[in-house]
Amino acid sequence: MTSYNLLLLPGDGIGTEIMAEVKTVIDWFGKRGVASFEYEQDLVGGSAYDAHGKAVSEATMAKALAADAVMFGAVGGPKWADVPYDVRPEAALLRLRKDLALFANLRPAICYPALAEASALKRELVEGLDILIVRELTGGVYFGEPKEIVTLENGQKRAVDTQLYTTSEIERIARVAFDLARTRKSRVDSAEKHNVMKSGVLWKQVVTKVGAEEYADVSLGHILADNCAMQLVRQPKQFDVIVCDNLFGDILSDVAAMLTGSLGMLPSASLGAPDATTGRRKALYEPVHGSAPDIAGKGIANPIAMIASFAMALRYSFGLVEAADLLERAIAGVLDKGLRTADIYTEGTTKVGTHEMGAAIIAEL
Amino acid sequence: MTSYNLLLLPGDGIGTEIMAEVKTVIDWFGKRGVASFEYEQDLVGGSAYDAHGKAVSEATMAKALAADAVMFGAVGGPKWADVPYDVRPEAALLRLRKDLALFANLRPAICYPALAEASALKRELVEGLDILIVRELTGGVYFGEPKEIVTLENGQKRAVDTQLYTTSEIERIARVAFDLARTRKSRVDSAEKHNVMKSGVLWKQVVTKVGAEEYADVSLGHILADNCAMQLVRQPKQFDVIVCDNLFGDILSDVAAMLTGSLGMLPSASLGAPDATTGRRKALYEPVHGSAPDIAGKGIANPIAMIASFAMALRYSFGLVEAADLLERAIAGVLDKGLRTADIYTEGTTKVGTHEMGAAIIAEL
Ligand SMILES: CC(C)[C@H](C(=O)O)[C@@H](O)C(=O)O
Ligand SMILES: CC(C)[C@H](C(=O)O)[C@@H](O)C(=O)O
Repeated sequence: MTSYNLLLLPGDGIGTEIMAEVKTVIDWFGKRGVASFEYEQDLVGGSAYDAHGKAVSEATMAKALAADAVMFGAVGGPKWADVPYDVRPEAALLRLRKDLALFANLRPAICYPALAEASALKRELVEGLDILIVRELTGGVYFGEPKEIVTLENGQKRAVDTQLYTTSEIERIARVAFDLARTRKSRVDSAEKHNVMKSGVLWKQVVTKVGAEEYADVSLGHILADNCAMQLVRQPKQFDVIVCDNLFGDILSDVAAMLTGSLGMLPSASLGAPDATTGRRKALYEPVHGSAPDIAGKGIANPIAMIASFAMALRYSFGLVEAADLLERAIAGVLDKGLRTADIYTEGTTKVGTHEMGAAIIAEL
Repeated sequence: MTSYNLLLLPGDGIGTEIMAEVKTVIDWFGKRGVASFEYEQDLVGGSAYDAHGKAVSEATMAKALAADAVMFGAVGGPKWADVPYDVRPEAALLRLRKDLALFANLRPAICYPALAEASALKRELVEGLDILIVRELTGGVYFGEPKEIVTLENGQKRAVDTQLYTTSEIERIARVAFDLARTRKSRVDSAEKHNVMKSGVLWKQVVTKVGAEEYADVSLGHILADNCAMQLVRQPKQFDVIVCDNLFGDILSDVAAMLTGSLGMLPSASLGAPDATTGRRKALYEPVHGSAPDIAGKGIANPIAMIASFAMALRYSFGLVEAADLLERAIAGVLDKGLRTADIYTEGTTKVGTHEMGAAIIAEL
């Protein structure tokens, strides 16, 4: 039986509570014999800063590099609002993405019919929505140098960030998007600002070339990022796969997530390139939602996004597609039965806590 | 009687049709004696490119610099999709913004109750919505250098754009936002990505300082740009004035505009600093919508955004606040009477063309 080792990084806020539920899910799949899962848990974000003054320690980084997959909860909170820039909780996430070379961020925005009412949009616009945002995650303005604040002679300050993309960075993320589109509706929309950004010009050129030369069977559209944000609000179902750079992906995926009305439901995967010899790829899985410090410790957080992130791990890291399907069906099943955590509760449904929701998913499995 | 001179740049697509309606509105106000308006019309965008190979000629630029206000229609269309980068239609808009130093872009997102049904969002979330996005317009990644695509030794290309902000650039746009908030609900939210961008760090610092030292009466919030995009979808009425940089403003103002369900209704103003001696500021007014090549020449475009842009000119360039109010009430009046162009038509209302709508507004005046 193949054996996988996972690093669990619950992080801050509700991270610990939702990770606890994932553990029982991992154990369930382990006991069922689909594979053997070993896991270890460690600190990250504000809790790591409190423990050793860094958002992620070198020891933790080494474990993350060695793991088959990292399960990441959420980081940050008002407690760490004023810690120095380099050790702020988010720095851990950025370092993990960069050092593990997780260039492909997959963010599905799915609107479960049972939850369509929770959307700010009219039901008919979002019911059955199923978009996948493929966001470049290790380049662009997030990491480009120079990235600094300098004091000028006149006493003024000047801040600089650098948006930077190379041909190969764009090619590899485009391929991820096209490959995934083939498993869906075979449609990719590439969002950029080629009308004002040179990186947008190159982005459009490279995506066009990859599409024409390698994916003639996939239909490709180009859309300006501002218009894409508009169209997501106007008529979201027009999209299948959207591919974009790091910063546009940050915003567009949040808009797409919010359309579904249920942030607490949405997982994400951050993937590296397959290893040339083993074929395994480094990966980190995390919910789209944040650490929600306001409800932390109350046992009411929604563990579904975290559990669905493990379903993505089953699918993308371990190739256990049937197990992933099974887990996703179990999640849909408990929703059909009317179970809801507070964030998705509506009249006529049954309100449950974090652990009850986790247990119900296990029972459904 | 004060005399003002306007430069009308209808541009491409529906630009000419909607500008024709504005002329009758300008003439109406001139005849009523609120001020004397002179105007001249010129080419811009694709039509200027067709005429003399540039998106805006030097002669036109000189007129724009001399004008009290520029009324700008819209530029671009499939016809010019492949013209060289430096002379593409959008280049005209960027050059006008830069050379006229129009650093403050005001984008109101107002949802007329009569049109709330047209929004993708549920009526109760958008009815009566009134947000003002104040977008920095002459800095950031739009203009920062280096901005280039270079070919590397290995044959790969590398594209670079530079996000750049100085203290004074942030101070002046912050003041515009705070001043406008004082005429509204005295609330400013500043959107940036200080968690990943150094320009976001400086932005937050400077806005905080200006707020504390000069606008203690205005309440100030800070929000991450990705979360701001989400919150605009989730609960837009939580906002009054949002201030942000050029690129975030591009996206956030488009999201806010789309929430209202009626892009064809929304004007915008781009303002320079008041002249030290005359107090006059350079200004350009334009609809938020584009050139809509698909419906150009059919006489069905909605002229309201363009006419409402002239209302903004009355208010911000000429200080004719009563005239601006009058024009805005006339627009609301024709909507109350049930007149609609095709883009905002719903059953039970009366569908009219571009010119009929313009004439109805004149009649209402
Ligand atoms: C926490 C933050 C650094 C991060 C980002 O900007 O990428 C977050 O918004 C995300 O989308 O994962
Ligand atoms: C046409 C384009 C250059 C422009 C921009 O990106 O600023 C437009 O999207 C806008 O918002 O006015």
